[in-house]
Amino acid sequence: VTAVLGWDIGGANVKAALVDTVPGGLQVTTASRPFEIWKDKSALPTVMQAIAGELRLPVLTALTMTAELSDAFRTKREGVNFVLDAATAVTKGPLAVFGTDGRFVDVATARVHPLRVAAANWMATALLVARHVPDGILIDVGSTTTDLTPIEGGRVVAEGRTDPERLLAGQLLYTGVLRTNVAAMVSEVPLRGRPCPVATELFSVAGDVHVLLGALDPDDYTSPTPDGRPPTPDFAAERLARVVCADVEMLTRVAIVQIAQAVADAQVGQVAAALKRIAARLPQPPQVIVTGLGAFLGVSAAKACGLAARDLSDVLGIDVGLAAPAVAIAWLRSVER
Amino acid sequence: VTAVLGWDIGGANVKAALVDTVPGGLQVTTASRPFEIWKDKSALPTVMQAIAGELRLPVLTALTMTAELSDAFRTKREGVNFVLDAATAVTKGPLAVFGTDGRFVDVATARVHPLRVAAANWMATALLVARHVPDGILIDVGSTTTDLTPIEGGRVVAEGRTDPERLLAGQLLYTGVLRTNVAAMVSEVPLRGRPCPVATELFSVAGDVHVLLGALDPDDYTSPTPDGRPPTPDFAAERLARVVCADVEMLTRVAIVQIAQAVADAQVGQVAAALKRIAARLPQPPQVIVTGLGAFLGVSAAKACGLAARDLSDVLGIDVGLAAPAVAIAWLRSVER
Repeated sequence: VTAVLGWDIGGANVKAALVDTVPGGLQVTTASRPFEIWKDKSALPTVMQAIAGELRLPVLTALTMTAELSDAFRTKREGVNFVLDAATAVTKGPLAVFGTDGRFVDVATARVHPLRVAAANWMATALLVARHVPDGILIDVGSTTTDLTPIEGGRVVAEGRTDPERLLAGQLLYTGVLRTNVAAMVSEVPLRGRPCPVATELFSVAGDVHVLLGALDPDDYTSPTPDGRPPTPDFAAERLARVVCADVEMLTRVAIVQIAQAVADAQVGQVAAALKRIAARLPQPPQVIVTGLGAFLGVSAAKACGLAARDLSDVLGIDVGLAAPAVAIAWLRSVER
Repeated sequence: VTAVLGWDIGGANVKAALVDTVPGGLQVTTASRPFEIWKDKSALPTVMQAIAGELRLPVLTALTMTAELSDAFRTKREGVNFVLDAATAVTKGPLAVFGTDGRFVDVATARVHPLRVAAANWMATALLVARHVPDGILIDVGSTTTDLTPIEGGRVVAEGRTDPERLLAGQLLYTGVLRTNVAAMVSEVPLRGRPCPVATELFSVAGDVHVLLGALDPDDYTSPTPDGRPPTPDFAAERLARVVCADVEMLTRVAIVQIAQAVADAQVGQVAAALKRIAARLPQPPQVIVTGLGAFLGVSAAKACGLAARDLSDVLGIDVGLAAPAVAIAWLRSVER
């Protein structure tokens, strides 16, 4: 039995997966914590230690990250080095750092080429999917972002490697099901039968929309709420009412649900448009593989494009939970040795 | 000599004006503090006390507010009552609370009709302008929002009274020159000659745009920066680079300035479009009166519409500084007695 610990260090969530290669397949355990690195970056090693405590620390460790983009760091170089320091402190054996080219490098190399290992987690999951689905599009909808990665003939055929390149290509969408500011998702919402411009504060986020509409369980709304109040439908309605500078005494619940539905529709539309563009370039209609907390959004987007969607855990026959990239790099590390 | 103290209690700034009626006109002194009420609302009386200490506490006091919309409060009713409590605690004589109908009410009445006194500050300034400019449009561009108020035949002819009504009418724009999230101002910016979708974090705000372009002095960027670093052009460039998930090692300064210019152009375009709609309904081309920290934006918008713009302080012959609504309600209170 060989065990590998995979880390996916995001700016708002730290996730880990312990992958054991056992007779007949893989045994996967995952653990994660919401952690907003810009609030207290010095706590990262402690958070990682707590997560590792829920799993265990094997000799083999693999690492991927997106936290380097956080404005806790002046540059990605600074962020990558900070995450490498934290990971080194909580790692027993050698640390393999995953790159956007799908290969691992050691920590020294990663420090010299920070852009090579910055925001590479999408590639890890895509490589894992490509082993099982030779022609498809992986949609990973997280709390904050959505990755759409095309796979053709068993190869990852993504356009762009870095975050800016992938934004330009429409394969990284900066929209997710928890943290995205409603004011960045839509410029107008329906109010009294007319389009009403939205307040550009951080009054309400995607989590409020999906909790109010029942697509998301309040227990899964793990990011801080904008007003610091609970992630329940009632408080979500209060937050959404502020988006049109109103409150729950001025608006009916029906009016607030209409606002939420308009935002959700816009978000599905955004993902569907990106999916359609990518699918159009593939030689045949792809199978869509969805994962992440916002998998339901990927399913809706696929449906809007007339494409069939399957959940990643079903495809793999193992439960990757909400930590697909962490599972994927642990798995990649175990087969690469 | 009669003195009136006017308060304008916003969610991000607390402003006051002491207006003395002296032989030959008015003598105006203003004072203000940036104060984000959602971070520690209990400090409001202390902040008001400090501002009053810079001026003085006459017997006559007038109050207007927009802070009630902050998510420090579950409803506007709660917010209005909280502000009334704070103002009462730092007021010597009777407190006159300004309403969106242009009239003052006492505190007891304001408590019973919170929507009447919520977000009424735009009306105060417009009434003052209407005494001097019978046909015009007042544009007050602040740190967070922009009010456009039409005046016809010496009367304020605004469409809508409450914030939601004024948003729907296009007479309240939720865009300002400091606090507005870039991701809520534009969905794409130019990068490598192509439109690049923006990251929907709070990475950069309008203050970064205008400081980098030289339209705003860093000393006037008084709101907290998103990354907590200084409000200088260099740090503004770092924040703006993150908007396309990049950093200052990946982008040239010229590329970042292009991003800033695109955001500024979009903002001028938004204000100009609203101005054009309002002007089209007036019988003759209006004079545009600009005020606020973002008066320069109002001037650009007027120019884009082919309209002449004058600064409010020039029109009045008194320096209202950045506290036009506070000056206006103090003045209104002094003439109403």
